[in-house]
Amino acid sequence: MKVLVINSGSSSMKYQLIDMEDEKVLAKGNYERIGSDNSFVTHKVNGEKYKTEKAVVNHKEALDVVLKEFTNSEYGVISDLSEITAVGHRVVHGGTMTESMLVTDEVVENLRELIPLDPLHNPAAISVIEACQELMPNTPMVTVYDTSFHQTIPESRYLYPIPYKFYEKYGVRKYGFHGTSHRYVSKRAAELMGRDPEKGLKLVTCHIGQGASLCAVENGKAVDTTMGFTPLAGIAMGTRSGDLDPSVVTFLMEKEKLTPEQMDTMLNKESGLLGITELSGDNRDLWTSIENDDDNAERAKLAMESYTYIIAQYIAKMVVAMNGVDGIIFTGGVGERGCEEREMICDYLKWMGVELDLEANKVKAEEQKLSTADSKVEVWTIPTEEELMIARDTKQIVENLK
Amino acid sequence: MKVLVINSGSSSMKYQLIDMEDEKVLAKGNYERIGSDNSFVTHKVNGEKYKTEKAVVNHKEALDVVLKEFTNSEYGVISDLSEITAVGHRVVHGGTMTESMLVTDEVVENLRELIPLDPLHNPAAISVIEACQELMPNTPMVTVYDTSFHQTIPESRYLYPIPYKFYEKYGVRKYGFHGTSHRYVSKRAAELMGRDPEKGLKLVTCHIGQGASLCAVENGKAVDTTMGFTPLAGIAMGTRSGDLDPSVVTFLMEKEKLTPEQMDTMLNKESGLLGITELSGDNRDLWTSIENDDDNAERAKLAMESYTYIIAQYIAKMVVAMNGVDGIIFTGGVGERGCEEREMICDYLKWMGVELDLEANKVKAEEQKLSTADSKVEVWTIPTEEELMIARDTKQIVENLK
Repeated sequence: MKVLVINSGSSSMKYQLIDMEDEKVLAKGNYERIGSDNSFVTHKVNGEKYKTEKAVVNHKEALDVVLKEFTNSEYGVISDLSEITAVGHRVVHGGTMTESMLVTDEVVENLRELIPLDPLHNPAAISVIEACQELMPNTPMVTVYDTSFHQTIPESRYLYPIPYKFYEKYGVRKYGFHGTSHRYVSKRAAELMGRDPEKGLKLVTCHIGQGASLCAVENGKAVDTTMGFTPLAGIAMGTRSGDLDPSVVTFLMEKEKLTPEQMDTMLNKESGLLGITELSGDNRDLWTSIENDDDNAERAKLAMESYTYIIAQYIAKMVVAMNGVDGIIFTGGVGERGCEEREMICDYLKWMGVELDLEANKVKAEEQKLSTADSKVEVWTIPTEEELMIARDTKQIVENLK
Repeated sequence: MKVLVINSGSSSMKYQLIDMEDEKVLAKGNYERIGSDNSFVTHKVNGEKYKTEKAVVNHKEALDVVLKEFTNSEYGVISDLSEITAVGHRVVHGGTMTESMLVTDEVVENLRELIPLDPLHNPAAISVIEACQELMPNTPMVTVYDTSFHQTIPESRYLYPIPYKFYEKYGVRKYGFHGTSHRYVSKRAAELMGRDPEKGLKLVTCHIGQGASLCAVENGKAVDTTMGFTPLAGIAMGTRSGDLDPSVVTFLMEKEKLTPEQMDTMLNKESGLLGITELSGDNRDLWTSIENDDDNAERAKLAMESYTYIIAQYIAKMVVAMNGVDGIIFTGGVGERGCEEREMICDYLKWMGVELDLEANKVKAEEQKLSTADSKVEVWTIPTEEELMIARDTKQIVENLK
């Protein structure tokens, strides 16, 4: 069985074609700047990169180009589109959907109803689903939601302490995101730790990339997470503020005469590490500045101290959610490659029995135990595999159709 | 030496006249609804209550009435105003002032400059200072700031991950509040625990009343706190939301067409326990509902679970600030009397070595150790004495003038 996994953003479309016999990626790529004159796709097969510049106006046109890449005479990986057994779609906001779903009219309608909660991502996901329905009408599809893993979080933790009517009227509550990643790494961590996840295992999974969230996973189930109503919530990120004193929001809107939309953009795009440094929201740029001891070094150091301190504080919040912790798992771009960040974060957690093995912690983008043999809490880094998880869900649901 | 302590709100004025020889309160009271037609003062001497209904238009007129109470022929406690050696003013927002100050023109000017940061409290404080200058022109005064104890918090913890220019332009940063209370109880806790506060003692002080904040006190100094730019920040409170996903703020403003001021009011006055229950922001009302198992009981229980969970999570954040903890101290109305709240909070903290003595925890409004002899972390409740602390600062500063 070959499964096509699609992860669509508002102006991009990432994809992987995976052979489920051996879970091997046959081809993958990214269509960027969809809707602009200079849109292009970078397609990869066996480590070779093929760039095609082709202006497309929407996701359907982009998908059409991508499908032709798969059957391309020179570097195609299948001879006919009918070889694609199923398509798995990553959907950012699934509301209160608790699991991955076979795409039906009802499922699409549900995504449409959720647009007010995620006006950026959900319309793109819907248009790609519709494009697939046109271009591959007989291929079953599955939607896999970033939110669904978090739907086991209890009501007292997902409700906000604001007027209850807004929960009833608009569904304002904590949803949580990166669920597919938290699900994958928590499951994989249990395997690596030699533990049955459902026998009392307590994990804090830390998905730290440009976007970042933590999840408390107890007995294999999410019991709290740091992102909330939107992916702006929780810890500070590359360009996002995370949780704030809400009066900071109203104060700045009043003083700077900002609309809600402008304020939201500022907190999503101009805050976090970028906000403090006024330099970059990319951790690597800040480390370069610090290493070179340039004019920005001091501010970069300050931002990195603030950022890692906040992450450590939120790890402790996740531990409270489980009344204890057996393992802390780092994943995502920074979680997999940020040795310095991991060390700074774990330095704040010594009191809870975290002891990092500094030599082991030098690893990048590999599965590795990072804590010493004596550490009361195991620390691991595990590269995330969201696409694989989506493909597995898709395979399972489609196989059950038979 | 007799010191008059004044704690002025926007339409109220609380006061205590304290004899510093034995730190005994000679008289105390509260002028309420200042500026309205039905303003009145409740004056207490030796447990006797004297209510005077007298409409006053401002804090100066209120002070004039109060001073006459002190020398009242029937229940006066001094024969002449000259017996009042000094006045200590509680000031909510002292910006970056690090300690209590003798009132000078410069100090008043500084308070005036801080009005944009606290438009409710600081104007009232200034008007009471000016009233004292008129009515007791030869009496020295001292200002004691709610913010000053927190000024030892390092930059990486008081900066928000938002564009740095707003820190430079408006002073948007974490200030922290309830500093006088955190200072008092942390000092008193060290005495009760038989520890030198400056020799590595790590305390989380929890001031939980209608407003509520936690403080991490290491070596006698604040190293983090939960309130922030304003007293709306941090944990959920009676009617305040505490920290939020900032997108909740912009989303609701957009949907409900709210101005920044309206939104701020909603988050300050209609949120927290009141927001979730739609019933009351007073913990006692919720416990009554739960005990009676009435129609609101379920929601009240939900709110109480959410509230205590959030407090426990923020205690863990404060522990991260110190990389450990020796004692957790409860104070403020709920902290001193909320046995159920203390038990629910400590239940989440067993993993860090907190073991509550359920019998001891029944105490209300008394100094008491609440943890078992085996508990790794000591838990105490200590009634706060903010007015006494203000009087002590005032005495010390005025004595140094000689």
